[in-house]
Amino acid sequence: MKKPNMDPDSKLRIIPLGGLEQIGLNITAFEYGESIIVVDCGLAFPEDDMLGIDLCIPDVTYLKDNIDKVKGFVITHGHEDHIGALPYILKEINVPIYATKLTIGLIDRKLEEHNLKDITKRKVINHGQSINLGAFRIEFIKTNHSIADASALAIYSPAGCVVHTGDFKVDYTPVYGDAIDLQRLGEIGKKGVLALMCDSTNAERPGFTNSEKTIGKIFDTLFAEHSEGRIIVATFASNVDRVQQILNSADKYGRKVVVEGRSMINVIETASELGYINVPDNTLIDIDQLKNYPDEKLVIITTGSQGESMAALSRMALDLHRKITIKPRDTIIFSSNPIPGNEKAVSKVINELEAKGAKVIFQDVHVSGHACREEIKLIYSLVKPMYSIPVHGEYRQRHAQSEIAAELGIPSEKIMMLHSGDVLEINCNGAKVVDRVQTGAVYVDGLGVGDVGNIVLRDRQRLADDGIVVIALTLEKGTGQVLAGPDIVSRGFVYVRDSDELMDDAYDVLQETMDELFDRGITDWSRMKNSLRDNVGDYFWKKTRRKPMILPIIMEV
Amino acid sequence: MKKPNMDPDSKLRIIPLGGLEQIGLNITAFEYGESIIVVDCGLAFPEDDMLGIDLCIPDVTYLKDNIDKVKGFVITHGHEDHIGALPYILKEINVPIYATKLTIGLIDRKLEEHNLKDITKRKVINHGQSINLGAFRIEFIKTNHSIADASALAIYSPAGCVVHTGDFKVDYTPVYGDAIDLQRLGEIGKKGVLALMCDSTNAERPGFTNSEKTIGKIFDTLFAEHSEGRIIVATFASNVDRVQQILNSADKYGRKVVVEGRSMINVIETASELGYINVPDNTLIDIDQLKNYPDEKLVIITTGSQGESMAALSRMALDLHRKITIKPRDTIIFSSNPIPGNEKAVSKVINELEAKGAKVIFQDVHVSGHACREEIKLIYSLVKPMYSIPVHGEYRQRHAQSEIAAELGIPSEKIMMLHSGDVLEINCNGAKVVDRVQTGAVYVDGLGVGDVGNIVLRDRQRLADDGIVVIALTLEKGTGQVLAGPDIVSRGFVYVRDSDELMDDAYDVLQETMDELFDRGITDWSRMKNSLRDNVGDYFWKKTRRKPMILPIIMEV
Repeated sequence: MKKPNMDPDSKLRIIPLGGLEQIGLNITAFEYGESIIVVDCGLAFPEDDMLGIDLCIPDVTYLKDNIDKVKGFVITHGHEDHIGALPYILKEINVPIYATKLTIGLIDRKLEEHNLKDITKRKVINHGQSINLGAFRIEFIKTNHSIADASALAIYSPAGCVVHTGDFKVDYTPVYGDAIDLQRLGEIGKKGVLALMCDSTNAERPGFTNSEKTIGKIFDTLFAEHSEGRIIVATFASNVDRVQQILNSADKYGRKVVVEGRSMINVIETASELGYINVPDNTLIDIDQLKNYPDEKLVIITTGSQGESMAALSRMALDLHRKITIKPRDTIIFSSNPIPGNEKAVSKVINELEAKGAKVIFQDVHVSGHACREEIKLIYSLVKPMYSIPVHGEYRQRHAQSEIAAELGIPSEKIMMLHSGDVLEINCNGAKVVDRVQTGAVYVDGLGVGDVGNIVLRDRQRLADDGIVVIALTLEKGTGQVLAGPDIVSRGFVYVRDSDELMDDAYDVLQETMDELFDRGITDWSRMKNSLRDNVGDYFWKKTRRKPMILPIIMEV
Repeated sequence: MKKPNMDPDSKLRIIPLGGLEQIGLNITAFEYGESIIVVDCGLAFPEDDMLGIDLCIPDVTYLKDNIDKVKGFVITHGHEDHIGALPYILKEINVPIYATKLTIGLIDRKLEEHNLKDITKRKVINHGQSINLGAFRIEFIKTNHSIADASALAIYSPAGCVVHTGDFKVDYTPVYGDAIDLQRLGEIGKKGVLALMCDSTNAERPGFTNSEKTIGKIFDTLFAEHSEGRIIVATFASNVDRVQQILNSADKYGRKVVVEGRSMINVIETASELGYINVPDNTLIDIDQLKNYPDEKLVIITTGSQGESMAALSRMALDLHRKITIKPRDTIIFSSNPIPGNEKAVSKVINELEAKGAKVIFQDVHVSGHACREEIKLIYSLVKPMYSIPVHGEYRQRHAQSEIAAELGIPSEKIMMLHSGDVLEINCNGAKVVDRVQTGAVYVDGLGVGDVGNIVLRDRQRLADDGIVVIALTLEKGTGQVLAGPDIVSRGFVYVRDSDELMDDAYDVLQETMDELFDRGITDWSRMKNSLRDNVGDYFWKKTRRKPMILPIIMEV
């Protein structure tokens, strides 16, 4: 069973620093001796209970504590959940970045925005090429995904080779470039692979994911059927191949194309500069030229396929877009599926568009970028790893992959269901979680990174649920006599004009409380504040069954 | 074309008072001369942006303004979105309620909770029976739905007959009672129907909805396959037929059944008292008896199929349930689909359950209670209405029904897409929206009904996003000299211990502002407050890109 390329006395450490509990924060450290390499560096969008948070980035305390060992970031592909946290993390851990051409192109745009481009080393790696980083050699292997230039990684160390698929699907007929390099995966597998870290996102879905190319035929059919009026297509900004196919259909049916939405424009610019998209001559026009063409000669490719409130399509739907107004003969195609959690937002946009008389097509104009069960089985059968470490996806999806691995004969003790922060020590003699390191989501809110924590969020939740009541009073120094107040001001609690009686009675409660405190000779501010808070809080609860935050402020003159 | 039962000179008014914009607030007034009847009276759960709101009820100002005309509530079935607002609305509009037996049974439970049972007239109507209310005659017609005893209504007035389907499906082999009375719908149609108000919920789905009975076979198969360990089934509390089938499978496979979750217990009690459920002898046991039986002899039927955070299954998943702990050999069946908006919550519960080692089954153990496209076509073909008025469902679904109506030959000017508040005047000569009445959602928050409006919600949103900063100061009467403060207290804005510098500098901004105001001789409190708010607000925006609510409080001694 033991392979010559796996030293049984050496120890590789695999440390997922995020991404297993909160989807999106994909970042995994591989540590061998004095070398650490980091695979991906993604961001996550906030969950519903993270009020006011703009985005989440991974906690990289472990990397900061071991900064001397960190050799670089190795990035599998250019999606936000794999590159989005780089501008934040690079400010603290400025090590070189290695990735394929389009991925580096997309990272460069971010680094420019954050003024980091000049101080960050980036290196473009071709598929098939390897790099040496400390004790590691990392080989980039061509895969397919919903963004071009995606890579799997073969990560070689003395302990053995770990294959990390990144996000992938098997597309035998990709729109751009080559199919996934199954031969190389087979070759590496034949030599012996210590562990496979495989994308689980679609592990619950049976069968195969369809080729991206099938969507091109669907666009052709839809363009032929809807020859009157404009065609507006919403899709993921980063799906360059999807945009290519829309451009192809537009060209075929003699329509000009306007691209709308900042992220869409950015990605298409980068992709076309780098040669990943082939814009047919005289197809793209500027948004201000829309009026120069009849509707049936126009296509608009736009952001907003997830119902994001600020995206271009959502603004069109609500009549808030400055340059595009939805018309009754428009055909709007959602070339996307709602990401879990976005269903309602998407539905709202569809309602608005249909209420304006537009025809909305939202089913079967999308294929996933992730491998389904049979594709996952194919990868396992090529790589034949000693260990299975399911990655990418919620627990239920990773669990589904663990069942696939078991079905393919991997013994259960060699299927490792990890948590973020687990330090997995692994070689061909065994694998074990030997330690846990600090991980979690660091909240970005405006310019603040990490200054909003659980206490602030708990307060925001309380304020959101029942509002706030501020009680202010001024006492005389020495005597503790009330000189001014108590004043009561509320926000987000009740509509005050309707509640004069409630507030008048609350005022009486405060007066009584102060009188009682005075009679008992209590002048300690924290005891006073507690009494005021408790008494008026109890009163409001009794009257309204609400628990506003109560904030007593005492001043002294 | 004109029928003898439709007087071309009489005018019926149909006024949807809710339910078309916000799903759930189903309530429709029918007005003829001096008579108003009200069909259904539902509640809606709050949307994401209704912070802190418990539930929404319809605005019935129009009914209050016409209280003398209102003859009664006619209820189609016992779901929350058709009966839930009754206890609130009856406090203002106490008129009799007419419904079938189980529906009245479920309403009675609510009236008891709200101490309204003694003062509210309720009358049980059988399918096939008619009642006279003012100028109206209303006939109850048997339908099928995901709750027993659902009715369509034939509403007769001199202007003609309007058929309102309520929520329905066509189930030729229902678990309890008869199939939908297609014959009677055909008979009524043959005599001439002015308008059909038909359920649109599944109008986007092709084909037919499966019979509830198909789920019984699936339970049998699942019970046979999972003979080890407990079986826990989560479903909708009100789906009595579903519970019946689970009881049947439990009985067949020799398992005892525990029912858990308050709403589940309530509905089963009511249904079994009224004879809508047939509990096999010696099947139900108390939750405290769980320990007396081996796991493979137990079934738990529970609430929480929508991932509701306080429901029994969610508490089990998070180890917060006092009496039931999830075990690795448990099989958990979600006999439900997530309602749009609940997908993520459901997924979280599944993740937790699987992480505890339980087997979770969540696909294909549910059928809808609503008619798909072919069933809708069947109803149109039996009723053959002059006008189509799609109801129930979001705009996109009602629009899909309008397309079905058009396909079946109803001219587009006779397909009425209404908004809540529209007053549709209709007879066989024409139909037109002639007026609009006040409608909307009234927010219930704790004990308060309607005391939280848009201003309070806007404040809660602001507080939720960026928190609050309170600035307090005490001035000397007459001179306007600052005697105490300015004090700054923040909540939900930044974690203060990390932000001493930010707050220190804000204090300087406040001091400078006060000095400047004093120098300029400005003592007007509202100008002072504005200056403080603007200056410190600008400062915080510059430093943090956040906009906390800023609340200046000035006192005077």
